Amino acid sequence: MNKLLLIPIFLTVLAITLLSPLTAKAQFAKTEDAIKYRQSTFSVMGTHFSRIGAVVKGEKPFDKAEVAANAAVVASLAHLPWQAFGPDTEGGKSLPEIWKESDKFKASSDKMQKAVAELNTAAKAGDLDTIKKAFGAAGQSCKACHDNYRKK
Amino acid sequence: MNKLLLIPIFLTVLAITLLSPLTAKAQFAKTEDAIKYRQSTFSVMGTHFSRIGAVVKGEKPFDKAEVAANAAVVASLAHLPWQAFGPDTEGGKSLPEIWKESDKFKASSDKMQKAVAELNTAAKAGDLDTIKKAFGAAGQSCKACHDNYRKK
Repeated sequence: MNKLLLIPIFLTVLAITLLSPLTAKAQFAKTEDAIKYRQSTFSVMGTHFSRIGAVVKGEKPFDKAEVAANAAVVASLAHLPWQAFGPDTEGGKSLPEIWKESDKFKASSDKMQKAVAELNTAAKAGDLDTIKKAFGAAGQSCKACHDNYRKK
Repeated sequence: MNKLLLIPIFLTVLAITLLSPLTAKAQFAKTEDAIKYRQSTFSVMGTHFSRIGAVVKGEKPFDKAEVAANAAVVASLAHLPWQAFGPDTEGGKSLPEIWKESDKFKASSDKMQKAVAELNTAAKAGDLDTIKKAFGAAGQSCKACHDNYRKK
């Protein structure tokens, strides 16, 4: 290959690398869109998580298929909201710490996704005691993030 | 079995049957919760559907994995919002026709879910022309419902 050809390729790769931190915001045309998106995903997750909570607390009878369906929805949504916390998307109920300590926030989000995946596994297996433990751990991971990163 | 025992069983079955139309609302403590839930699911679906739309319109390059991921999110959410159109959940952007002609509304929602499942299949296969066709059909199914059942 002509070595001169490598220059535009190098510049393109460099540009993509430099622009990549913007991708998260670039997915959303406006900051409000990113806020709406993350709030919507958390809201739907919360609805289905609470339905499992009602069973765990004994307020509703344990229907294995229903708990599994709710856990599957939670698990499938759990990877979505984070893309909407890109640069320049501050606002809504989010505290500025999300952007100031993004590594710590990322670790919290990873912990939640892991906990929710474990809840999904437990729900599929269908043992209520295991579900209760996994639900407790997942709930703790939600709470930790809310305590640190969500406006009161 | 003692025939007297059949009476409470009969009454229980009757009660469940009579209460079942309430299940949809009973999933949500308040009408606002149902409205927020359905708006949130549609909003997240819309975000991911639009991302495929940008590829279909040629505004973004075709990244097979990305389109497949977006179609998977749309397909996984497509079965959710309908549970939040139960009795006594009128409001938001929904027109009263949803509750007046619930069979027709149900048929529209089924059509959308089918179209979205086909888009998901096409996206997994990765042929852009097939994706474009499936995207068009899915978009039509969204539009038909919006035209008939959503406030302008």
